[in-house]
Amino acid sequence: MNPQLTGIVPPLCTPFTRDGEVDTTSLAALVARALDAGASAVFALGTCGEAVFLTDAQRRTVLDTVVQAAAGRAPVLAGVIDMTTPRVLVHARAAAEAGAAALVATAPFYTGTHPAETAGHFRRIRGAAGLPLLAYDIPAAVHSGLPAATLLTLAEEGVLAGLKDSSGDLGALRRLLLALRERGLQDTFSVLTGSELIVDGALLAGVQGVVPGLGNIDPGGYVRLYRHARAGRWPAAAAEQDRLTALFALVDAGAGTPPGMSGSASALAGYKTALHLLGVIGHPATATGQVLPEPAVRTVRTLLAGAGLL
Amino acid sequence: MNPQLTGIVPPLCTPFTRDGEVDTTSLAALVARALDAGASAVFALGTCGEAVFLTDAQRRTVLDTVVQAAAGRAPVLAGVIDMTTPRVLVHARAAAEAGAAALVATAPFYTGTHPAETAGHFRRIRGAAGLPLLAYDIPAAVHSGLPAATLLTLAEEGVLAGLKDSSGDLGALRRLLLALRERGLQDTFSVLTGSELIVDGALLAGVQGVVPGLGNIDPGGYVRLYRHARAGRWPAAAAEQDRLTALFALVDAGAGTPPGMSGSASALAGYKTALHLLGVIGHPATATGQVLPEPAVRTVRTLLAGAGLL
Amino acid sequence: MNPQLTGIVPPLCTPFTRDGEVDTTSLAALVARALDAGASAVFALGTCGEAVFLTDAQRRTVLDTVVQAAAGRAPVLAGVIDMTTPRVLVHARAAAEAGAAALVATAPFYTGTHPAETAGHFRRIRGAAGLPLLAYDIPAAVHSGLPAATLLTLAEEGVLAGLKDSSGDLGALRRLLLALRERGLQDTFSVLTGSELIVDGALLAGVQGVVPGLGNIDPGGYVRLYRHARAGRWPAAAAEQDRLTALFALVDAGAGTPPGMSGSASALAGYKTALHLLGVIGHPATATGQVLPEPAVRTVRTLLAGAGLL
Amino acid sequence: MNPQLTGIVPPLCTPFTRDGEVDTTSLAALVARALDAGASAVFALGTCGEAVFLTDAQRRTVLDTVVQAAAGRAPVLAGVIDMTTPRVLVHARAAAEAGAAALVATAPFYTGTHPAETAGHFRRIRGAAGLPLLAYDIPAAVHSGLPAATLLTLAEEGVLAGLKDSSGDLGALRRLLLALRERGLQDTFSVLTGSELIVDGALLAGVQGVVPGLGNIDPGGYVRLYRHARAGRWPAAAAEQDRLTALFALVDAGAGTPPGMSGSASALAGYKTALHLLGVIGHPATATGQVLPEPAVRTVRTLLAGAGLL
Repeated sequence: MNPQLTGIVPPLCTPFTRDGEVDTTSLAALVARALDAGASAVFALGTCGEAVFLTDAQRRTVLDTVVQAAAGRAPVLAGVIDMTTPRVLVHARAAAEAGAAALVATAPFYTGTHPAETAGHFRRIRGAAGLPLLAYDIPAAVHSGLPAATLLTLAEEGVLAGLKDSSGDLGALRRLLLALRERGLQDTFSVLTGSELIVDGALLAGVQGVVPGLGNIDPGGYVRLYRHARAGRWPAAAAEQDRLTALFALVDAGAGTPPGMSGSASALAGYKTALHLLGVIGHPATATGQVLPEPAVRTVRTLLAGAGLL
Repeated sequence: MNPQLTGIVPPLCTPFTRDGEVDTTSLAALVARALDAGASAVFALGTCGEAVFLTDAQRRTVLDTVVQAAAGRAPVLAGVIDMTTPRVLVHARAAAEAGAAALVATAPFYTGTHPAETAGHFRRIRGAAGLPLLAYDIPAAVHSGLPAATLLTLAEEGVLAGLKDSSGDLGALRRLLLALRERGLQDTFSVLTGSELIVDGALLAGVQGVVPGLGNIDPGGYVRLYRHARAGRWPAAAAEQDRLTALFALVDAGAGTPPGMSGSASALAGYKTALHLLGVIGHPATATGQVLPEPAVRTVRTLLAGAGLL
Repeated sequence: MNPQLTGIVPPLCTPFTRDGEVDTTSLAALVARALDAGASAVFALGTCGEAVFLTDAQRRTVLDTVVQAAAGRAPVLAGVIDMTTPRVLVHARAAAEAGAAALVATAPFYTGTHPAETAGHFRRIRGAAGLPLLAYDIPAAVHSGLPAATLLTLAEEGVLAGLKDSSGDLGALRRLLLALRERGLQDTFSVLTGSELIVDGALLAGVQGVVPGLGNIDPGGYVRLYRHARAGRWPAAAAEQDRLTALFALVDAGAGTPPGMSGSASALAGYKTALHLLGVIGHPATATGQVLPEPAVRTVRTLLAGAGLL
Repeated sequence: MNPQLTGIVPPLCTPFTRDGEVDTTSLAALVARALDAGASAVFALGTCGEAVFLTDAQRRTVLDTVVQAAAGRAPVLAGVIDMTTPRVLVHARAAAEAGAAALVATAPFYTGTHPAETAGHFRRIRGAAGLPLLAYDIPAAVHSGLPAATLLTLAEEGVLAGLKDSSGDLGALRRLLLALRERGLQDTFSVLTGSELIVDGALLAGVQGVVPGLGNIDPGGYVRLYRHARAGRWPAAAAEQDRLTALFALVDAGAGTPPGMSGSASALAGYKTALHLLGVIGHPATATGQVLPEPAVRTVRTLLAGAGLL
């Protein structure tokens, strides 16, 4: 991994075949498309990649496919999402073997966790895996947040190489960015936002990179947004962000689908339907086999057309 | 009120005397200082104004004082925070009598509320009070959020003239801003952010105004930030935002104060201590009489000095 | 108030006339019916009484009516629900003037609160009002719980005369009951449960009294349940509790009522519909004028018949 | 498994050696002690068993050990806790191979889940594993609850053979018990409570069995409590419950242990310290190696003595 991770890093969806297996051909195509569009790295096995729905064997298939498809053009970050340290370590070892450039781990979940326990968790992963480690702050999934004090301590110790922030709390993120600069850590600790609707503001606040789920569908849009921001063309960045925000409505297309679909399933099915309509992947189902009904597919098609992608 | 509310609108603190009465002299000074610094309006009786700690008589004293101190230089927005519609209506009538230019109301709280009930709540307030009405989205206090669909309906009906957003969720706010523009409502519905650490990003996303609690302490800073943004000087806006973000640490000065202080009390005490050190108000106590201990006061003084205010 | 509050204490509904005024005739009938059935006290202006929807003047009307209707036959507990100490004190003084025997206050809400601040809140209310004070633990409404340590301290200080527990957490309540006995406080501190579906278990665990919302509809059932328990007839108590549990389904009758009804509105409307069908009150509307549609009314009627009340 | 699971079913702790391996000797001793005391079954790999901290290989070791130690004297229930259906299925197959009599599965977690998705989850597990399946309702860990409507549907379909309820909400559980009886499902669907402080009340309400974490330490106490209840000796049941409630304080012994310990770690460490002091297990560490400091160990010893166990 680059000492300093920057730019657009799509958290890759995991395509499935009709019989529920990892669709490695489609996955390789997704990787190639992202890198061709200018992504600086890819992130496999994140929340968007439905990693929590994959068996260990399927996770390994995903990682092998992505590493091979990236073919050294860009680093591959690997999610090692699991409930506790010992289980994360299993994934971490597999990811290292598969050629990941860095690991991305959440706090422990299911059981409650104290910040001191969370810090110990990251220390053990870092110590065992021999790879740069990013903390993944995603309170909506793990039901605890990563306190700034913990992150700063681990950054100073060299345990953490960065943060993927999916908290949605840009105010807290700004305080963290400021504290990192005060401690001279801004060049050794990368802050990446996973909030795909506020990328312009997050870049203005100082984040180094972006991990946008919607970047699976429109990596070129996010790369343009990033380049506008880096070049100081802020109104152009905001206009690009607005276009992407309109497109983001595809995450709601599945709402109300009988017999009932969670928000996260709707978002995933929306992403995959879009990728299917764009011809990137072969089949639009989620890991549990959910697909959008035809009216929702039409909504997704309309949104893609509105964004200039169809 | 202006048809379109824009600019910096400080949510005024309510100073108290040593014996716990509203300190009208200090409050008038606070208003004058904000307007002298370029605030486009002031917001009395919000969360920052400790409105929920005030008796009805004290609320009236606050409002009379602020309206008189504003002296027609700028509109006065009045919070009408209470648990349910009938009680809010009592405050709304008092605010109208006192000369408020607009009202700011939360969703009902204490009991659960359905979006349809929340919509009815705003319709009744608008109908009864004869003043422009802003919805106040503050889930941390009322434990429900205002769905975009509800806000858009009420905007189209003319029930709501705007939104004060204290949700901290800039992504959702951006989707709302986009939906307002799609419906041609951007000139009749004002979106104000109450998130004082992401004002640059919120302005880039398209909010019209800002209601920053920290604007009590440094109204000039927020006015500069606003003007930089309006003039397209985004790096300067971000630098100003960074300076204000560092200053914001004063909200944590009271953490750990024996025998125990909530986060909101610590923030209020931090604000008031700063205003006291700056010579704006006569006494730094909160509505419940809490004051910061001496080490915390020193922290606040250091932060003020660091921000160039002392 | 009795030194030791025991037995069934219905938290009185507040009936309204068609034009939204407090229906004092119906309210007096409700009080008389509860006392005739064997209630040992009544609790006015609680959550069930929709106190948070009442203006100060309406609260006073309710309290005057209830005190007069109780006519010295049983003590009247008065809820003093409001957001913060200064506002609660206004209600507390009014309740004392109206002849309440004891006050029932929640923790502060809207703003966050630290246990030390909550303790100070109860101390100030107790000191100002000159009446026995019960703490009202209702996290679903105020979004903080009352820690056992705080309750025990205030019990030992004599600040609190008891607890109305609406947390639903019978395990925590049992630990509190045990701690009170260990400290010899079981005769000076009354623990009342507001969980109407687990009264048999709560009495077995040692609570002294019960504040069941459903006791508005079937006070006699709760009095029988209480007497069975006191006499050691536990299977009979459980059978009575089962009958009341089946009746409790009326709180869900309003679910799905267009254009949308919160769970708390549905429960209140269910209670009032039942009281209307039983001929106790004149009009079934909630404080905000909500009434159940005809199919839901039929559901309530069926449940009343099933419980042997119609 | 018996068609109807009843009685005391301890959710077994997983003892570890000093070097962090599963201590099979201690685990076998724990099983034997529970069965000698009258437990009707044992539950391996639950929350108390720290299953989420175990690798797949360690889980298998635990299950093999428990099945062998149970030696056909009583059925072994196996937890199959993981984030999503595909991963749970891996555990389910392993548990079936190891000889489990029934499986216990939570709702999916990490991602959000809709009740319809949760129902599908249980259907797939039941279909794949060929073993009776109990739903595990533990909102504190998985952050969603199991709605009664979903449970009733799955009970009627024969998908679920029972429920382990760790919601703490005895009122909701009573409504479920009533609904099961109304549908004639009380003999084919077992309701077990995991709330160790309200067992007397839960048995009075009609649960068939109990899964008490504290039953690791005092299985004989819970068996006595159960027998008292079954024999209608309710005051004796309550007295036994009170004794166990006092003992339960050992879960708090670790609170405040530097550098910081979560509530769940404190509880686990408290249980294991007690088992170590009682001579049942060889080493008191949790899965992550946490042990109580000496003052906390003394607290546990005092509590054991107070409960008559030392």
